[in-house]
Amino acid sequence: MKRALQAYLENAIPLVVAMGVTVDTADDGRVVLSAPLAPNVNHQSTAFGGSIAGLATLACWGWLWARTRSGAVPTGIVVANSTIEYSKSVTTDFTAECTAPADAVVAAFVRTLERRGRARIELAATVKDASGVVCATFGGRFVAVRAA
Amino acid sequence: MKRALQAYLENAIPLVVAMGVTVDTADDGRVVLSAPLAPNVNHQSTAFGGSIAGLATLACWGWLWARTRSGAVPTGIVVANSTIEYSKSVTTDFTAECTAPADAVVAAFVRTLERRGRARIELAATVKDASGVVCATFGGRFVAVRAA
Repeated sequence: MKRALQAYLENAIPLVVAMGVTVDTADDGRVVLSAPLAPNVNHQSTAFGGSIAGLATLACWGWLWARTRSGAVPTGIVVANSTIEYSKSVTTDFTAECTAPADAVVAAFVRTLERRGRARIELAATVKDASGVVCATFGGRFVAVRAA
Repeated sequence: MKRALQAYLENAIPLVVAMGVTVDTADDGRVVLSAPLAPNVNHQSTAFGGSIAGLATLACWGWLWARTRSGAVPTGIVVANSTIEYSKSVTTDFTAECTAPADAVVAAFVRTLERRGRARIELAATVKDASGVVCATFGGRFVAVRAA
């Protein structure tokens, strides 16, 4: 799944390549992505907020991709809205981790997707620096739609 | 100011170059940035959410840079948090526009920055496609700190 997500992201989203994103983990439980500081740096030699938000968005999107890919329904996934809080400057390479919501939430999401062909789910991601310190917290609503 | 902001962004943030960002307008009243779809595309051939949020972040950051650059106090600017609502898929080149908050809000921000060496301000940006249709609305809190 890890290699499949890496290939999919690199092929579909040029900015993933520009950001140097690597898929570290991808399974039904979580997705962890990492990015080097150099291509994502800003005017203060820390990570650009847009890169941090982008990596967090991709981690959540990737988890949903991994989760729905194993199901019967081919799906398109988009982000509907998101919020991010930057708590500490990122001065190193960094990671974004999306962990699966509670089983009941995921089950309801999958049921709705199968019944109505469309479902939404709230996902969260945490961005950490190389020391494991949390530098940003991200939350977003993602919408999955059954492919035509 | 437009050329100065373009040069500053391209020099400081490699992702600005990867995204193909152009500064269309930069003055005390507003900053408008544009980006081509191609380098910012996603798996659905529409603009990647991370690119949209990134361009909106840069528009607000750029407005504050333009606004504080003309003042007496050299400042570092960072984004503290942000929220974005994606209302329509972006299928063309796109723009992000940050317009100045009310004069009283800007005046209070400048006063605080001069007195305390640190101030925060809430900024908003609108992302539109090539037809001028609003595709996303962004709001964020930015913090300016007097350079040491």
